[in-house]
Amino acid sequence: MSKIMAINAGSSSLKFQLLEMPEETVVTKGIVERIGLEDSIFQIEVSGEKKKETLNISDHSQAVKILLDKLTSLGIIESLDEIEGIGHRVVHGGEKFNDSVLITDEVLSGIEDVSDLAPLHNPANIVGVKAFKEVLPNVPAVAVFDTAFHQTMPEQSYLYSLPYEYYEKYGIRKYGFHGTSHKYVSERAAELLGRPLEQLRLISCHLGNGASIAAIEGGKSIDTSMGFTPLAGVTMGTRSGDIDPALIPYIMEKTGQTAAEVIDVLNKKSGMLALSGFSSDLRDIEQQAQEGNERSELALEVFTSRIHKYIGSYAARMHGVDAVIFTAGIGENSDEIRARVLKGLEFMGVYWDPSLNKVRGKEAFLNYPHSPVKVIIIPTNEEVMIARDTVRLTK
Amino acid sequence: MSKIMAINAGSSSLKFQLLEMPEETVVTKGIVERIGLEDSIFQIEVSGEKKKETLNISDHSQAVKILLDKLTSLGIIESLDEIEGIGHRVVHGGEKFNDSVLITDEVLSGIEDVSDLAPLHNPANIVGVKAFKEVLPNVPAVAVFDTAFHQTMPEQSYLYSLPYEYYEKYGIRKYGFHGTSHKYVSERAAELLGRPLEQLRLISCHLGNGASIAAIEGGKSIDTSMGFTPLAGVTMGTRSGDIDPALIPYIMEKTGQTAAEVIDVLNKKSGMLALSGFSSDLRDIEQQAQEGNERSELALEVFTSRIHKYIGSYAARMHGVDAVIFTAGIGENSDEIRARVLKGLEFMGVYWDPSLNKVRGKEAFLNYPHSPVKVIIIPTNEEVMIARDTVRLTK
Repeated sequence: MSKIMAINAGSSSLKFQLLEMPEETVVTKGIVERIGLEDSIFQIEVSGEKKKETLNISDHSQAVKILLDKLTSLGIIESLDEIEGIGHRVVHGGEKFNDSVLITDEVLSGIEDVSDLAPLHNPANIVGVKAFKEVLPNVPAVAVFDTAFHQTMPEQSYLYSLPYEYYEKYGIRKYGFHGTSHKYVSERAAELLGRPLEQLRLISCHLGNGASIAAIEGGKSIDTSMGFTPLAGVTMGTRSGDIDPALIPYIMEKTGQTAAEVIDVLNKKSGMLALSGFSSDLRDIEQQAQEGNERSELALEVFTSRIHKYIGSYAARMHGVDAVIFTAGIGENSDEIRARVLKGLEFMGVYWDPSLNKVRGKEAFLNYPHSPVKVIIIPTNEEVMIARDTVRLTK
Repeated sequence: MSKIMAINAGSSSLKFQLLEMPEETVVTKGIVERIGLEDSIFQIEVSGEKKKETLNISDHSQAVKILLDKLTSLGIIESLDEIEGIGHRVVHGGEKFNDSVLITDEVLSGIEDVSDLAPLHNPANIVGVKAFKEVLPNVPAVAVFDTAFHQTMPEQSYLYSLPYEYYEKYGIRKYGFHGTSHKYVSERAAELLGRPLEQLRLISCHLGNGASIAAIEGGKSIDTSMGFTPLAGVTMGTRSGDIDPALIPYIMEKTGQTAAEVIDVLNKKSGMLALSGFSSDLRDIEQQAQEGNERSELALEVFTSRIHKYIGSYAARMHGVDAVIFTAGIGENSDEIRARVLKGLEFMGVYWDPSLNKVRGKEAFLNYPHSPVKVIIIPTNEEVMIARDTVRLTK
């Protein structure tokens, strides 16, 4: 029996999931939050029950030590030797990493090299890697990049129409994110469709607080809505998605903000939060819209219209589509959003059955049997992908 | 017989076309360039032949005086009394003007009020209006706005996912441009299709050095690719179109440019010029691509792929499409670009005949007769639209 720990480290948090492989069952999962503060929170699932403690955890190494200690003291595992690999989510792999990779000193400095492209995320991910390295120096670790799956995009998709030297000198291009999720659901879609992935044209809609759409042809990402950063593409919880770039200096001039401050507004105070005027949480907005709140209705319209248009756009990109996939929090759970996104796509062969749409958080087909284009809900599972890659690269 | 002068004034230029209405025939046309310099150029067509002179023209009023003087001295018209109206192209009408309008002092100050939204264009347009007013004070003048046709867009299309106060306080929204052209070709398409405009869903591709795509439903623009400014949307001759907004501060930091300087690069040194590395002129790029130049091939791929994706996106937006229209310099003349844009759209009902595509600058259907979606080349004619509106509003 082989256990793999899947880790997602943030600047003050550490999300973990321990999986039994190859069964892909979850042994335990949890999160350490507020690391570095005096009232850090440690949460872990034991036999399906959540246990929560407030502790003083000074840094990620200490968080890892406490986590490992809990695993044995709570009887979740008998010995730390059972952990045969650690898989770390790393946000940005730049052009260097087009697949997951066994972490060596060279790889770690490679991840540091591209930190410039994800200054908020990569350094935190690296802290997580180092913390485990310190506590479990002999357990192999693997980095799984959010960007790697999209490295198959052709030049015409990833290049901006900017001076070419910006690409050569500064790495300015579309990278795309949520790659692990898009990859997972596309592979799962092939299984559910009973067709080889190589023959499929898929549009994957990862709709969570962050949202991105991907065009996946023959198992390879050939285009995606996020860009150089996760700000681009569709409207999100608090992110604007694409806007006219000329607005940046205009907003700077009107509000007296710096360019960085404007981008901060675009990342944190825009999107559904700005449109609805009161919340970035889709459930609140759906509720308000149902009660007749116009700004909430508008927010739903803008959000779903942007996704709807991407589906048309990516269908054109692949000269047609075999299946549209919904995943992540909103995609898996909101029938309202799915209904709006799917409305009026019959012209491209999407025939879906509203009576099949009343489903939450589980795999389901929404299309009529005769529909040329299938519509599938697939709950995403990035931890399983991380565990699979960790097994693959450590055996 | 009624003659209408259609005017497009730039900061140092004045483009004119004199039309006989309601026949819509061109009496003469030409351009005054380098106004304010010592070697201004005056060019006018007489009996189909271009006459060119180098003159010293100090300002737009003088340009107008010379123009009117030439009209009679060259025997183009007998008397200035024949000119019954002046139609002025005005770039930006903001939210104030959703149709062409007879120019009064109040209208003129209204145009000045929205100049903030088009600081390079509106002031020049106003200079043109004033110059004609000075020389022909009793001839009624009409303003025809590039933005007016798009004022029918619903909120979900024109609102950015930005703090709502940006819209309320600063007028930040999508305006769209090329409206006069999109309107002309959509009306003409209905005539050519022999169907009422009210029943049609059209996608209009205005592809020139500037390029924009519009979704036109029932004769009304409901979405368009340009935004707050003409920088947004697809890749253009020298403009980048949409990019990840987070790139602005990143480019500023890497290159030491201000935000305004970066936007200037995005407007003037990006697009096809940047991708090809040598020219913004599509003919040069097509030539080089044919000779195997990879960057030119890439430029063509990026340019056409962006348009192609907008067609899919706007088909989704309207739940299908009845006709795709190509217009403006590139749209009317490049069979290569049209072929790339149209490739693989059979999934949405576009069946076109390559043998019909070898046509330049004239109205033509490119679709097979059985194609559910028609494909039409329609040379644009903004001057005729200006003249029509001028007649309509001055009678």
